[in-house]
Amino acid sequence: MGALHEGHAGLIRRARRLAGPHGSVVVSIFVNPTQFGPKEDLSKYPRPFAQDQALCRKEGVNLLFHPTADEMYLSDASVAVREKELSQGFCGASRPGHFDGVCTVVAMLFNIIRPDVSVFGEKDWQQLAVIRRMVRDLRIPIKIAGHPTVREEDGLAMSSRNRLLTTEARRDAPRIYQALRAVAMEAEDGEDSVARLCANLKKDLLAIPGASLDYVGIVNQETLAPLKKLLPSACARALVAVRLGSVRLIDNLPIPSSR
Amino acid sequence: MGALHEGHAGLIRRARRLAGPHGSVVVSIFVNPTQFGPKEDLSKYPRPFAQDQALCRKEGVNLLFHPTADEMYLSDASVAVREKELSQGFCGASRPGHFDGVCTVVAMLFNIIRPDVSVFGEKDWQQLAVIRRMVRDLRIPIKIAGHPTVREEDGLAMSSRNRLLTTEARRDAPRIYQALRAVAMEAEDGEDSVARLCANLKKDLLAIPGASLDYVGIVNQETLAPLKKLLPSACARALVAVRLGSVRLIDNLPIPSSR
Repeated sequence: MGALHEGHAGLIRRARRLAGPHGSVVVSIFVNPTQFGPKEDLSKYPRPFAQDQALCRKEGVNLLFHPTADEMYLSDASVAVREKELSQGFCGASRPGHFDGVCTVVAMLFNIIRPDVSVFGEKDWQQLAVIRRMVRDLRIPIKIAGHPTVREEDGLAMSSRNRLLTTEARRDAPRIYQALRAVAMEAEDGEDSVARLCANLKKDLLAIPGASLDYVGIVNQETLAPLKKLLPSACARALVAVRLGSVRLIDNLPIPSSR
Repeated sequence: MGALHEGHAGLIRRARRLAGPHGSVVVSIFVNPTQFGPKEDLSKYPRPFAQDQALCRKEGVNLLFHPTADEMYLSDASVAVREKELSQGFCGASRPGHFDGVCTVVAMLFNIIRPDVSVFGEKDWQQLAVIRRMVRDLRIPIKIAGHPTVREEDGLAMSSRNRLLTTEARRDAPRIYQALRAVAMEAEDGEDSVARLCANLKKDLLAIPGASLDYVGIVNQETLAPLKKLLPSACARALVAVRLGSVRLIDNLPIPSSR
């Protein structure tokens, strides 16, 4: 989607390591209209292309794929790829049609670029899970590498939206990560009730000045199915979406089982 | 779908010519459960695998891909490919969900086999149009070759369903092709009103003893959009589905414009 930052640079470096010195690293920058909901403003999405291009050049990207919407979508396009389970809750619930747009454009990009491996950030955990599912179910012959969230020094997950935060909200925003860390530590210390862990997580997040919660969940990290108890058999992940003023931030963290 | 006949053998020979002597021809035989409607009987579909295998061997097929439904579909599969325009009318109207099943399984087969070219019979004209659209819109890097319908000597389009016809119905079934030819000749002779051509086509088809019509249409052959007049700018095709007793037969033919 462009508006590249240090988090994206981490993905590019990971791709370079996976490709090896003789492989090619391709970056796609495409602000995809079909993943914006009717209430989301496509025209206001940042498009600092010259800066993005400079970052790609600096990181040794071999090919920057930057199509227009008209190049990607014919006016009578009528085919979509849809994931029906993992995409329904969380960001999918607040952004109807979003993951249909994501799956379809990612399938198209895969067919155009035909990479051996494709790197996605873990910060968009649900997106990563949906794409892994699409690749699994459609037998797409591409390895998906999830790359750990790159964070600011104070713990805030890097995002192009961070620059939209007010000074106060930016100061408070690292408390999202702190709340996730706190709940991971409670789990490590033996708490295995997901209801209790979620309640504590919500309490910590709502204590951030001006925060409202879009969602909070602790789920099976692959299927995004709800959990009642943490179990060593199913890796759990806490997923949160928090609004600080008008800015919606998402983050997530693995929640260990102490058993 | 297996139950191979001389029509399939024609597709295989076409694939061999396209592959050349050093290329490989792959045939998939998979009775796909997801393209059967709730009222269609998957269990009764013919599966003469030994015969199919013998035909493939005789035609010099390099690989016969014959997965089970469990190998193709995980129990928690949740991703589908959907075409929303061309797939809605005609066979899509009588068989809800059919083309979702077709698109999804064909996308999977494409990803598993990764052919350079894939051959589909023109007899299933709507299926061919839907698959061409899927390949176009998702940028699937595969050429689609449509292969002309192979017919019995009396003109009946080859189909595994022909063997289900009663003696009388089998005797009358070539009149479907004759009706299509008649309407193509009327068009050649200058009739350009699609309403009049369709009316004549319906009349001829309903004159077949025991026939009932599932659909009759003369449409743009690429988009399957309805036409009012035949025009040299848009190639037209007549599509019909006729029931003879309990057996549903489909056929189609290009309708030339005389202009």
